[in-house]
Amino acid sequence: MTVELSGVGVTPRTGFGNVIWYRGTTDLSDLPDPKTVDTDAELERFESACERAHEELDDERERARERVGDDEAEIFDAHKAFLDDPAITGGVETAIENGIPAPHAVRQAFEDPIAKFEGLEGRMSERADDLRDVRDRLLRILTDRGRVELGDLPEGTVLLAERLGPSDTAQLDPETVAGFATVFGGRTSHAAIFARSLGIPAVVGVGDELAQVADGRPVLVNGTDGLVVIDPDESARSRATDEETEIIERYVSTADGTEIEVAANVGTLAELDPADEAGADGIGLFRTEFLFLDRESPPNEDEQYDTYVEALSTFPNERVIVRTLDIGGDKPIPYLDTPDEDNPFLGDRGIRRSLGTDADLFETQLRALLRAGTEGNLAVMFPLVSHVEELDAALARVEQVAEELDEDGIEYEMPELGVMIETPGSVFMAESMSERVDFLSIGTNDLTQYVMAVSRENEHVADLHDPLHPPVLRAIRRTVSAGHDGGAWVGMCGEMAGDPDVTELLVGLGLDELSMSAVTIPGVKSRITGVDSEEARELAERALSAETRKEVLKMLE
Amino acid sequence: MTVELSGVGVTPRTGFGNVIWYRGTTDLSDLPDPKTVDTDAELERFESACERAHEELDDERERARERVGDDEAEIFDAHKAFLDDPAITGGVETAIENGIPAPHAVRQAFEDPIAKFEGLEGRMSERADDLRDVRDRLLRILTDRGRVELGDLPEGTVLLAERLGPSDTAQLDPETVAGFATVFGGRTSHAAIFARSLGIPAVVGVGDELAQVADGRPVLVNGTDGLVVIDPDESARSRATDEETEIIERYVSTADGTEIEVAANVGTLAELDPADEAGADGIGLFRTEFLFLDRESPPNEDEQYDTYVEALSTFPNERVIVRTLDIGGDKPIPYLDTPDEDNPFLGDRGIRRSLGTDADLFETQLRALLRAGTEGNLAVMFPLVSHVEELDAALARVEQVAEELDEDGIEYEMPELGVMIETPGSVFMAESMSERVDFLSIGTNDLTQYVMAVSRENEHVADLHDPLHPPVLRAIRRTVSAGHDGGAWVGMCGEMAGDPDVTELLVGLGLDELSMSAVTIPGVKSRITGVDSEEARELAERALSAETRKEVLKMLE
Repeated sequence: MTVELSGVGVTPRTGFGNVIWYRGTTDLSDLPDPKTVDTDAELERFESACERAHEELDDERERARERVGDDEAEIFDAHKAFLDDPAITGGVETAIENGIPAPHAVRQAFEDPIAKFEGLEGRMSERADDLRDVRDRLLRILTDRGRVELGDLPEGTVLLAERLGPSDTAQLDPETVAGFATVFGGRTSHAAIFARSLGIPAVVGVGDELAQVADGRPVLVNGTDGLVVIDPDESARSRATDEETEIIERYVSTADGTEIEVAANVGTLAELDPADEAGADGIGLFRTEFLFLDRESPPNEDEQYDTYVEALSTFPNERVIVRTLDIGGDKPIPYLDTPDEDNPFLGDRGIRRSLGTDADLFETQLRALLRAGTEGNLAVMFPLVSHVEELDAALARVEQVAEELDEDGIEYEMPELGVMIETPGSVFMAESMSERVDFLSIGTNDLTQYVMAVSRENEHVADLHDPLHPPVLRAIRRTVSAGHDGGAWVGMCGEMAGDPDVTELLVGLGLDELSMSAVTIPGVKSRITGVDSEEARELAERALSAETRKEVLKMLE
Repeated sequence: MTVELSGVGVTPRTGFGNVIWYRGTTDLSDLPDPKTVDTDAELERFESACERAHEELDDERERARERVGDDEAEIFDAHKAFLDDPAITGGVETAIENGIPAPHAVRQAFEDPIAKFEGLEGRMSERADDLRDVRDRLLRILTDRGRVELGDLPEGTVLLAERLGPSDTAQLDPETVAGFATVFGGRTSHAAIFARSLGIPAVVGVGDELAQVADGRPVLVNGTDGLVVIDPDESARSRATDEETEIIERYVSTADGTEIEVAANVGTLAELDPADEAGADGIGLFRTEFLFLDRESPPNEDEQYDTYVEALSTFPNERVIVRTLDIGGDKPIPYLDTPDEDNPFLGDRGIRRSLGTDADLFETQLRALLRAGTEGNLAVMFPLVSHVEELDAALARVEQVAEELDEDGIEYEMPELGVMIETPGSVFMAESMSERVDFLSIGTNDLTQYVMAVSRENEHVADLHDPLHPPVLRAIRRTVSAGHDGGAWVGMCGEMAGDPDVTELLVGLGLDELSMSAVTIPGVKSRITGVDSEEARELAERALSAETRKEVLKMLE
């Protein structure tokens, strides 16, 4: 008999396979009882465990950076920070000095901080998972246990676990793991974020009932509807497989024939092939920060040129939109003079730095881009523009670089040029901007942040950071209208673009292109093919006249 | 013969008096030559000088808070931080350990940091003045010199100095000091900020020529045009005096009869009388943060009631608009749970806290306000609203408090209710908001910050924080139109409202009320009386169609 358990779906895909339970290494019941210990030796043992943990975290961060992405890999820095936090290590040391062996001391000293984070609201509570991850790593190292190699599971595995930490999830191989489900965890937990980035179907927060599913059972993990289906029948299995296959085709249209481009956001070269395989109609956002991170000096022109050409060669017939360097005080780069700012999201970043402190870097990047322009269908866009003078200055730099290349007799081709609309200032000036460039691309994450005056990283005010608040929808609509009036096409490359539940609304708002994580492309394409443009426009009209997010959510149901 | 020297005018007023030169205490040429010293004794001497300096700074901060305002008083905390900065104190200690006496060590150790700040651009360079202030304080204490009592100058003094630090300026008494002028300093220096807050006519950055003006000479300090007039003739003197008197009347109108309310922003009870004397048509922004700062627990209902009644009794016939508590992570209050945030300006603050963590405080404040409503023409407005659900929740709290007062049989009167428009979200929802309240009040400082995505405190990107950027003007115009359509009157209480150079533009944009520092009221009223409404509207239309701030600045010339 088929049984369905429900939880929170985090990747809009379905996978089928056989259960393997992952029990982690937290069970310390088989540790020998604490007896009199050599305090100095235990302190030393703890110290070397911390060193070893730092080394492991460095390796895992690099692996996550390659396989998942820069932003996701940052969590390992947070784990390293916990290892260096005197509030935590001090507790362990005090316990050891009181005669407790190192592993028991670790277990004991982590208890309070974990409980403290669990007591907090919203996303803060998820830090408890990070602390557990750090604790379990130390315990494993201290007790010399082997590591469960999650990277080496048999093909067709559905992994079940109480919780999966980021270091667990980052190891999973999308080729072999058909999906995973956990007892605890929410939509914004690291496990969920990593699953989405890796494209692994996943359901989290299923609850204790998950424990009833035995090893080896056939299970369907439906990340779209948040369902774990145990012993699914043949029709459920084939339905799931059909959904997975029907949507990998390029350039889909709505039911009545309006073509909507569906492109991919990528942040590393490793993400290019998965984007191609997911049927991306090109790259809508190629972030270039990865080129500048984890090194001693900036990449030179040729190195950048090679990278851009590689992206173009993966998509020989499609458009590749490269965003110029977008960094600021929240992501310091050692060889750049990044200031320590009280409010880095309102600081010296994006195009501001490219026109100021980092003018040399900007010129090198533009030279590499213009040269790469001969190798495919390249487009370039500028981040965090907030007024017309900035855009004019950036475009003047492009002209100047082109002139210099002309003078030097170096071959180049002018790319399509665009501007990211992610500040309210650029929304209010969208007419003037669209007359100056070929396209506008709305970055909903930042736009929501500035329209609502709320940090996208602040857990205390997370509810405010939702693009379905009517003022954000109005800003989007204003941008699309002004862009079209000015003769530019208008795309969107924020997270909102990859949410299939708002696809109809976005079509109705008039967007020409949507760019998203590769994994969400098939789901969004599938939705587009079912949209009637006229109905979508009516939905958008209703949403634009709504006064509250609540009303909008009701319309979308 | 009359001689005119020009500099940067910082207070739009003119004063006349006789020169007294202030030479400060920086000249250490009469210190005995350093000889062999008792290192330990000198280190101890330096340490007690630091302690004494901390005590002085605490006192001065309190005095500045009472006389000038909370924001201005914060500079003394920055000075305290310099005293605790190991980069600075360590330098002094090393010098002492090398056998140099404490005062010489201080002079030497401050040299590099001062030079470093002087080499920076923009407002960062002004930190050099702060460091000098701290150095001179330490030197004065170490050399046991008396303090020049700037609070005790004869009436009709025009003070001249190379520089004035914040601790100098904060001592000046507007009753006796007719004005001051300095060789160095810019519009945003602390001396300038304090002068504006105290309403003292001032010209800074005059240059070396100021040194030619001898003690006792009659001088006119014209802060409007940035002029220091030496030996002014009778007509110049009487012209200055006329300008000062003609504009202290209530409720002025444009040349063609459109009445524009000109109200005062106040942040302490001490600012009420000066606002009244400056001819304010009421209070357009009564900040309530001062009630909550520097104490162990929040003020109770009766204490708040008394404060609001005092404000109403100073303006028995005019409107007094009280803004409910507006705090966040950047201004922590010890007895409140203010989180440490990465981007406090995008964090848990304003109405968000009043509807969340600080719901109890909000209820107490609303009870005190509704009760005070019987004693005058009271209005209440909510800060940092970014969507309609928040406004609805705040209004529901007001209703609920009114019901509770009814039940308890306590007398109250419902005030006029309004909402601050300082997030782009509220601009896009201004129609819906204006249908729910009596008035909108545009806070241009925050609105500019969020529209342009730039912190108002970040020196690196200060150029972006200007409300004359066209997108900000469009946001203002959108707010005024939507507000009037919804039946609300629309005011402005940001710094922009007090700049006489944009008065015509603001009248043209359709604002019904402007609220500002008391000292700028006469200047703005004077400008209003000269405005032709139709010309102002045309100016606004042109500014709204401008693409760049440059164009706007040209129109205003």
